[in-house]
Amino acid sequence: MNSRYAVILAAGQGKRMKSNLYKVLHLVGGKPMVEHVVAQVEKAQMDEVITVIGHGAEAVKEHLGNRVSYVLQKEQLGTGHAVLQAEPILKDKKGMTVVLCGDTPLIRAETIQQLMDHHEKTNARATILTAHTEQPEGYGRIIRDINGHVKKIVEQKDATEEERLVQEINTGTYCFDNEVLFEVLHKVGNDNAQGEYYLPDVIEILKDRGETISAWKTPDFSETIGVNDRVALAKAEKALQQRLNEYWMRQGVTIIDPDHTYLSTDVVIGQDTVIYPGVVMKGTVQIGEKAVIGPHTELTDSVIGHGTEIKQSVVVNSKVGNQVRIGPYAHIRPESLIEDKVRIGNFVEVKKSTFGTGSKASHLSYIGDTEVGKDVNIGCGTITVNYDGVNKHLTKIEDGAFIGCNSNLIAPVTIGEGAYIAAGSTITEDVPKESLSIARARQTNKEGYVNKKK
Amino acid sequence: MNSRYAVILAAGQGKRMKSNLYKVLHLVGGKPMVEHVVAQVEKAQMDEVITVIGHGAEAVKEHLGNRVSYVLQKEQLGTGHAVLQAEPILKDKKGMTVVLCGDTPLIRAETIQQLMDHHEKTNARATILTAHTEQPEGYGRIIRDINGHVKKIVEQKDATEEERLVQEINTGTYCFDNEVLFEVLHKVGNDNAQGEYYLPDVIEILKDRGETISAWKTPDFSETIGVNDRVALAKAEKALQQRLNEYWMRQGVTIIDPDHTYLSTDVVIGQDTVIYPGVVMKGTVQIGEKAVIGPHTELTDSVIGHGTEIKQSVVVNSKVGNQVRIGPYAHIRPESLIEDKVRIGNFVEVKKSTFGTGSKASHLSYIGDTEVGKDVNIGCGTITVNYDGVNKHLTKIEDGAFIGCNSNLIAPVTIGEGAYIAAGSTITEDVPKESLSIARARQTNKEGYVNKKK
Amino acid sequence: MNSRYAVILAAGQGKRMKSNLYKVLHLVGGKPMVEHVVAQVEKAQMDEVITVIGHGAEAVKEHLGNRVSYVLQKEQLGTGHAVLQAEPILKDKKGMTVVLCGDTPLIRAETIQQLMDHHEKTNARATILTAHTEQPEGYGRIIRDINGHVKKIVEQKDATEEERLVQEINTGTYCFDNEVLFEVLHKVGNDNAQGEYYLPDVIEILKDRGETISAWKTPDFSETIGVNDRVALAKAEKALQQRLNEYWMRQGVTIIDPDHTYLSTDVVIGQDTVIYPGVVMKGTVQIGEKAVIGPHTELTDSVIGHGTEIKQSVVVNSKVGNQVRIGPYAHIRPESLIEDKVRIGNFVEVKKSTFGTGSKASHLSYIGDTEVGKDVNIGCGTITVNYDGVNKHLTKIEDGAFIGCNSNLIAPVTIGEGAYIAAGSTITEDVPKESLSIARARQTNKEGYVNKKK
Repeated sequence: MNSRYAVILAAGQGKRMKSNLYKVLHLVGGKPMVEHVVAQVEKAQMDEVITVIGHGAEAVKEHLGNRVSYVLQKEQLGTGHAVLQAEPILKDKKGMTVVLCGDTPLIRAETIQQLMDHHEKTNARATILTAHTEQPEGYGRIIRDINGHVKKIVEQKDATEEERLVQEINTGTYCFDNEVLFEVLHKVGNDNAQGEYYLPDVIEILKDRGETISAWKTPDFSETIGVNDRVALAKAEKALQQRLNEYWMRQGVTIIDPDHTYLSTDVVIGQDTVIYPGVVMKGTVQIGEKAVIGPHTELTDSVIGHGTEIKQSVVVNSKVGNQVRIGPYAHIRPESLIEDKVRIGNFVEVKKSTFGTGSKASHLSYIGDTEVGKDVNIGCGTITVNYDGVNKHLTKIEDGAFIGCNSNLIAPVTIGEGAYIAAGSTITEDVPKESLSIARARQTNKEGYVNKKK
Repeated sequence: MNSRYAVILAAGQGKRMKSNLYKVLHLVGGKPMVEHVVAQVEKAQMDEVITVIGHGAEAVKEHLGNRVSYVLQKEQLGTGHAVLQAEPILKDKKGMTVVLCGDTPLIRAETIQQLMDHHEKTNARATILTAHTEQPEGYGRIIRDINGHVKKIVEQKDATEEERLVQEINTGTYCFDNEVLFEVLHKVGNDNAQGEYYLPDVIEILKDRGETISAWKTPDFSETIGVNDRVALAKAEKALQQRLNEYWMRQGVTIIDPDHTYLSTDVVIGQDTVIYPGVVMKGTVQIGEKAVIGPHTELTDSVIGHGTEIKQSVVVNSKVGNQVRIGPYAHIRPESLIEDKVRIGNFVEVKKSTFGTGSKASHLSYIGDTEVGKDVNIGCGTITVNYDGVNKHLTKIEDGAFIGCNSNLIAPVTIGEGAYIAAGSTITEDVPKESLSIARARQTNKEGYVNKKK
Repeated sequence: MNSRYAVILAAGQGKRMKSNLYKVLHLVGGKPMVEHVVAQVEKAQMDEVITVIGHGAEAVKEHLGNRVSYVLQKEQLGTGHAVLQAEPILKDKKGMTVVLCGDTPLIRAETIQQLMDHHEKTNARATILTAHTEQPEGYGRIIRDINGHVKKIVEQKDATEEERLVQEINTGTYCFDNEVLFEVLHKVGNDNAQGEYYLPDVIEILKDRGETISAWKTPDFSETIGVNDRVALAKAEKALQQRLNEYWMRQGVTIIDPDHTYLSTDVVIGQDTVIYPGVVMKGTVQIGEKAVIGPHTELTDSVIGHGTEIKQSVVVNSKVGNQVRIGPYAHIRPESLIEDKVRIGNFVEVKKSTFGTGSKASHLSYIGDTEVGKDVNIGCGTITVNYDGVNKHLTKIEDGAFIGCNSNLIAPVTIGEGAYIAAGSTITEDVPKESLSIARARQTNKEGYVNKKK
């Protein structure tokens, strides 16, 4: 196999994005666009990946780290000029070089591989990745000769009436013979309206020389989406979501409305899990089998067990066990560990706490910095008072304890095994196991008081 | 009128569903697919309905009960073999038999009737339910002769290039002369790649005999959706939702976004009610006129009155009166009865309780196992302490009572008519009517304390 | 420039709406349809705007006020008859008159202007606003002669097979020479199935006289949506939302799912703000730059600052500063002012209160009728007890105060600067600055109590 290189163009500013964020760093599926491209290129197993950076160079480097090599394009003088910056690294290397845009987040590794394989098989000097669309408006068209060989790429503005009818378009991704690429790039001129050096001119020069130009057509048009403004960004997001949703449905997940279910690329969902509409998943999310998620639940960087139900709730950076019931309207904040068969009910916030198997906090509670044992019943309105204005303190509630409603547990404090806190108590000292603890005022009824007041 | 029979094929496992649940039990609009088919067949007034069960036989029987007769297909040897299992019941009966698949949940009674009527009118031995689609890929095509008569059904894989262009497809629903059907089924062989007995072969045999084969084309393509995987399941759900939403809009309901409103087949919605996006209804839901539901409200098995507004809330198995305002972020749990002009506000949970006319629980409260009278004002943070760790107890709050904020009412307890509970009290004993009840500690101010501590 | 007049037809009842609300008052994007039309007509700078009212005359006048003149159509005898009611105001005036329907809420001022300009340029007596559609079913078709001149408008029911294939349709909006219009209107008869006087007949009469009839085709089909039932109402809503979402995306706003983001016409959104799915905005909403809104947030008549995040919350008629974090599950009620860097967390309700810079109410609290200073920490479960059953009272919490969890602040009450309220206290009297205030019962532990009870 020939050596395989990739050059990713990520230097543009993206004026039409109207943004302070550099174009390739805009998110699709929660990840910068260029990161999608890099991930697919990596899967396609290249010998070297070079990212051409310019606008936002430091920010792009920070995101991608040392997964790729970098070359700097100081001035943005066109795509041909951009690729030329990779010359110090790639010059004189035998093999093929795929050039991709950092703003085409839906390109797939399989397609990159097919492009390279086709390039090799057809002994081409250059191979264009093309796609079919019934709405080619705005794209460069692929003009083929009578034998079906690529004759040229013609831009929208330069196309004749007849050429505009062509529905095979240039995706902007190419594979080149590496040595030829850099030789010819030096011959590309900038004698055009924009005064830029265009990469597609390499094709024309090769064609003029009589070299073989191939084209590989991907069946999945969404791969070609290039994002130049936020309307295209939303289209890319939609296409990615369709791809992710369809993938998980085919794995045995019921998704009630795939048009209103927002997954990330790093989710894993078990068979027979049901996702209701309006669910948003961010980051790395793992869900077991036969779970029920949503409607209108947001999960971020969390692990959810089998048979667990999470309705109208938010879970962030936590681990939730099997057969747990959460929500509606619960909020599980980072670093929480909810074990099996726990119940976290409505208007309950859990923060940096653990819940042992079978424990319950069913209503209107705040449990923070707390270690809850097994089979604990936390009554409605319970608050762990973990902050004194200066420091955060820990609460421990041991197995089988019963916390009466509207109690305050002022940390640091330990409620012993099987202890019972009377409703309405503010607990400032440890409660020994099996004890009843109470802290409340006596009730006084002033009869007839309301009438007298009138 | 001839006798009319139906055979519903519900024996398949549905491997491509990748599920532990049997295919026909997967839900569309909250109901098993086969139940949709049975409901429509029932509406079409058949003399006898036979369901062929196999995989998950017991589960299917449990769902459908004695609405239908059952025959068991022990081995899944093809659709022809499946229908043949009904022979002990249907053999020698005069009349016509409609064969339907249990995985086509969008079929409509009207279409079944039209199919039978057309069958009768055309004196056919067999009539195929067909549909037009511009994307016939994957379906069996209806090949007609030059006179428009049905010549044959050809499967995708057996179709010639020319046949594949045909856009009239076989929906898999048929009407047969009953006696002929069972006679011919014995002649169907299994000499094919799968080694199965195919029902469409009956058509071919009849054709060879020179019998009349008719076809009835439904104008509603969604009726033909056959669900073999979860992608198709989501499509069926979408088609059902479009049908339900459009129906209710035509009845005078404003649905802001019908693409994101999820109804069940058993809803009734009054005129001039407005449904905001993200509303999910499950089970039997009845909503009056001029109500406002949503955004993002979930209603299950409940009755909602006229002019009532329910924003961002969850209501389950409860009855809500007229001019009630619920939410945002309220949770009405089962067996609650909310009478007219009640206000249930944010972060309030109501469970198995009644609220009399004009009462309010506007903020952050838990009212469970409670009978609330009329014109009661329940202050913010009120908790009915209904559980002592062993038993649940009842609370009664009589007409016109005023419950101060952050009170605990420890059940069993009764707050008398017009009584007044001071904020922050834990009430353990009954409060006589018109009394003030208070249970709290005196306030002490330690001046300068904060400075000293520094 | 000739004088320009507009007549808006708003007298119809709209039977197919099945509503007690008059047709033109049904809402699109939160505003009555007729108000959209009036707003666009106003932008097109007319010399006089006349609204023809009939059904719901008073209600329509109440909505539109004195932005337009009114004429009353007592009986609904057709569109021609409706326009004729404007004769007392417009008769004998030189210039042109645009006639629009009050149920076409997506018409744009630019299109109205182009229609009038084309009318003027072509020296026409009448100019029809037309549009192209591939699904012309139900619309009046524009029949042109061999030279492309308008020959006639033919209604669906009167069209020949060939005419039905025409894809240029009549939008129902026209521009007329004013004097000619009123002269000819008197010649329109009602000799038709409905017995009505039809405005399009004016075109026919003019054509018969040999006058020039022009047509101006809008490229945006959605402008032509005429709403006669709720299905069309939902389509108009969808078209408006697409227009609004696309506009804001092009201004530099990231909208994750424009198909599930509901804006009003009176929103302003800053660059680099991100809108998650399920966001609903109503009324006048202004959002700064780099804000993050949603998922599933509802904003009504509010101002939101730069860099502020509002997740899964409801904000009504309030002002929120910069770098504020709200939600999930918070409710900001009217007349609240939240200054910079404030945190309003889960299950917190704020009503008619101000929060000074840097203050926090992070969990499960109700803050109503309260003035909160700077850098105040309001503990979980804090309730401002602002209602005594008769009156509402004010609470003041001064800079740097610390309110312990589950406290009740019984208004009227002032918590002094830097004061500290112990958790679980019910505060009835003012707390001097820098003081500790406590009001709670002592804790008693009854050891072994639980075991004894068993």
